[in-house]
Amino acid sequence: MTAPDSVPDVDVQDVTDPDDPRVDDFRDLNSVDRRPDLPTGKGLVIAEGVLVVQRMLASRFAPHALLGTDRRLQELKDDLPGCAAPYYRASAEVMAQVVGFHLNRGVLAAARRVPEQSIAEVVENARTIAVLEGVNDHENLGSIFRNAAGLAVDAVLFGSGCADPLYRRAVRVSMGHALLVPYARATDWPADLATLQRAGIRLLALTPRADALPLPEAMAAVHQERVGLLVGAEGPGLTPAALRSADMRVRIPMSRGTDSLNVATAAALAFYERARLGP
Amino acid sequence: MTAPDSVPDVDVQDVTDPDDPRVDDFRDLNSVDRRPDLPTGKGLVIAEGVLVVQRMLASRFAPHALLGTDRRLQELKDDLPGCAAPYYRASAEVMAQVVGFHLNRGVLAAARRVPEQSIAEVVENARTIAVLEGVNDHENLGSIFRNAAGLAVDAVLFGSGCADPLYRRAVRVSMGHALLVPYARATDWPADLATLQRAGIRLLALTPRADALPLPEAMAAVHQERVGLLVGAEGPGLTPAALRSADMRVRIPMSRGTDSLNVATAAALAFYERARLGP
Repeated sequence: MTAPDSVPDVDVQDVTDPDDPRVDDFRDLNSVDRRPDLPTGKGLVIAEGVLVVQRMLASRFAPHALLGTDRRLQELKDDLPGCAAPYYRASAEVMAQVVGFHLNRGVLAAARRVPEQSIAEVVENARTIAVLEGVNDHENLGSIFRNAAGLAVDAVLFGSGCADPLYRRAVRVSMGHALLVPYARATDWPADLATLQRAGIRLLALTPRADALPLPEAMAAVHQERVGLLVGAEGPGLTPAALRSADMRVRIPMSRGTDSLNVATAAALAFYERARLGP
Repeated sequence: MTAPDSVPDVDVQDVTDPDDPRVDDFRDLNSVDRRPDLPTGKGLVIAEGVLVVQRMLASRFAPHALLGTDRRLQELKDDLPGCAAPYYRASAEVMAQVVGFHLNRGVLAAARRVPEQSIAEVVENARTIAVLEGVNDHENLGSIFRNAAGLAVDAVLFGSGCADPLYRRAVRVSMGHALLVPYARATDWPADLATLQRAGIRLLALTPRADALPLPEAMAAVHQERVGLLVGAEGPGLTPAALRSADMRVRIPMSRGTDSLNVATAAALAFYERARLGP
């Protein structure tokens, strides 16, 4: 590395051979995958693109390696000092050979998972909590995190059947907010809902049922209270057990002849209505 | 075809050879594609799945052919009488060979495009119109149609740079509502916005700008009026020219540290706030 190429306080290491073992954690991202539930999965958390890498750097997931072009290094040079991880600098072509496809975001960061927080921890100071059941689609899950971050939801709680929020695609669609919005997993579902209720949290279940309360009325009624918003997977919706556990059933007023909205959109409307009245 | 297999009032024709020319309109959907802007494109409108096929049957796009399994035929047997198109019945395996991938929705319908409506036609009786600029992503476009249908938006108007609402993926993500919600294309953009304004329509432009009016206030102010909601592509947002043409700039109140929402989600919140006060 010659002097003009160095970046102050960043450990820049050039990679010119796609087989370089230093970048193994970024290899064949699509096929090997990083899901911990797969035999090949390392369970690494991968951030893609400058914005998401910046959010990872601000999160509890400290990257142990970055791989990117020089251009992205320059864009990140104010964010990287303080990060101990090496920046493996490569051409777009070498990057494409490593990850297995052309990555136009130009930079990746890899972090190991950290111990997950408990429900009690993430709920403690939360005023509004999204509680998800059966949301098994990574894009929907990512969207819900993005919407939660933008619309004043403090924490996400996973009931049964949810996808992995740290899977690469979920992180990308969330714009990195899956790394920032606190979340926890229920260990006893739906019994854990009663734990929330004992903590003084009112549970509102989103459902298309006609006998549910319209969203604006429901939110007005719980304006002063701490709230958990239960949303279920598109299609089946919430299970009867989860619906029964809720204090209130809430519906989004819809036009006739339409059935439902995408689950992340429905959640966004509930978050919005909740935030609309202010804290 | 033996008697037990027939379905009253439906022209069922069995297809066992994947090379059968009768199903050519469904061939190699992913690679050949049907986009009219491509050299290979026929510009056909393709509906996938029982629900979307039902919506196509209820739309101005009359299918000229269907391809599906016997199971889907049974699910559609009350919808098909009155439809003159043949139902090409095939096994899931033969279907997969025709379309080039395994299609778990089990049924497809193909329709030719129909002449598009003018702005004047679609706007005539509309109380709320979504006006899109630069929404060039088929999924976002499909989501916007789905949200429009569910949240009382009467018509969609395309400014420059929008994707094709009749492309297969847009139709699928819209749950078929791209075939049902009236839409028109601007021929002179953004000058056509003035045409809307002369028709008495108030134009509200969605923007993250801090000096814009919060969404609830803005919608309350135009509650009695006909409204056009301008939304631009994620990232660049509306062009300065489109922003200048608007009567009012409107922002969704967002949490600090977040930048923006997905364009279809932002549109859904605006539609919701508009519908919230009632007609």
